[in-house]
Amino acid sequence: MKDNNCIFCKIANGDIPSRTIYENEKFRVILDNGPATDGHALVLPKEHFANLFEIPQDWAAEAMETAKTVAEMLRDKLGADGLNVVQNNGEAAGQTVNHFHMHIIPRYKGDGQTILWKPGHPSDAELDEVCRRILD
Amino acid sequence: MKDNNCIFCKIANGDIPSRTIYENEKFRVILDNGPATDGHALVLPKEHFANLFEIPQDWAAEAMETAKTVAEMLRDKLGADGLNVVQNNGEAAGQTVNHFHMHIIPRYKGDGQTILWKPGHPSDAELDEVCRRILD
Repeated sequence: MKDNNCIFCKIANGDIPSRTIYENEKFRVILDNGPATDGHALVLPKEHFANLFEIPQDWAAEAMETAKTVAEMLRDKLGADGLNVVQNNGEAAGQTVNHFHMHIIPRYKGDGQTILWKPGHPSDAELDEVCRRILD
Repeated sequence: MKDNNCIFCKIANGDIPSRTIYENEKFRVILDNGPATDGHALVLPKEHFANLFEIPQDWAAEAMETAKTVAEMLRDKLGADGLNVVQNNGEAAGQTVNHFHMHIIPRYKGDGQTILWKPGHPSDAELDEVCRRILD
C-alpha cells in the first residue's frame, strides 16, 4: 500500500522523477541527491513501510538481494574500492524519511568519508548484564 | 565452507565462545565486544564469505531476515529508540574482519553516537554523469 503523503512512495512508484539506476517488481533504486560519494544510491520499496520493524520479512529479504545486485553494479561500473550498506530506523538513528530505505554507498580510497562509531569499552560484567537483559 | 584462519568462522561455529543472543541454522548473532551502544550485535554467517559481493543471494536475504528478527529483540528487550544496520565491505569502507557481517546498533536518545556521512552537493549535470556511467 502506498502512503499518499510520503515522498519516497511517490519516487518509488515513478510519480516524482528520479535518477533510477535499477528497478524490479518491488523496488526502485535511485541516486541520492546529496551523496556521500559518487554513486550513493537508495533502495526504495514501492509499498510503504516505515522502517525495518514494519517491513515484512520477505520484503526485507528482497531488499537485501536488491542491495547486493546494485552493489555489484556500482563496484563494476564506478570502480569502487569498497562499499557501505546503511539502513537507519527512527529519528534517534538518523532516519529522516519514514519510508524504509537502504543506503548503498560506494567507497573510494581517500574519499574523506568516515561512517563509523566510537567503540565503547564495557567490562565483561557489563556485557554479561546486557546479554542477560536481551535473553531474559 | 569454513575458513580455518578466520576468527568470525570460529565464533560463528561455536569454536570460540561468544555472547550469543540469537542463532539459527545459517547464522549466529553475538554481542560486539567494543559496542557503539548497549546491545550492539553482529550477524555472522556460519560459512565463510568475505563480503556482500561474495555471499550468495539466498544467504544475503536470510542475513537481512535474521537482522530484522534481532532488531525486534533489541528494541523490545532494551527499549531502544532507534536502530542502525551497517554492513561494510572492503578496507576502504572500514571492514576490519574479512567475513561478511552486519552490525545491528540499537540507538538511544542522547547516546552521543553519530553514524553519518558528509553529504555532497553535486550539480544536476554531475549527478547525470554518474547516472550515465552506471547505466552505460
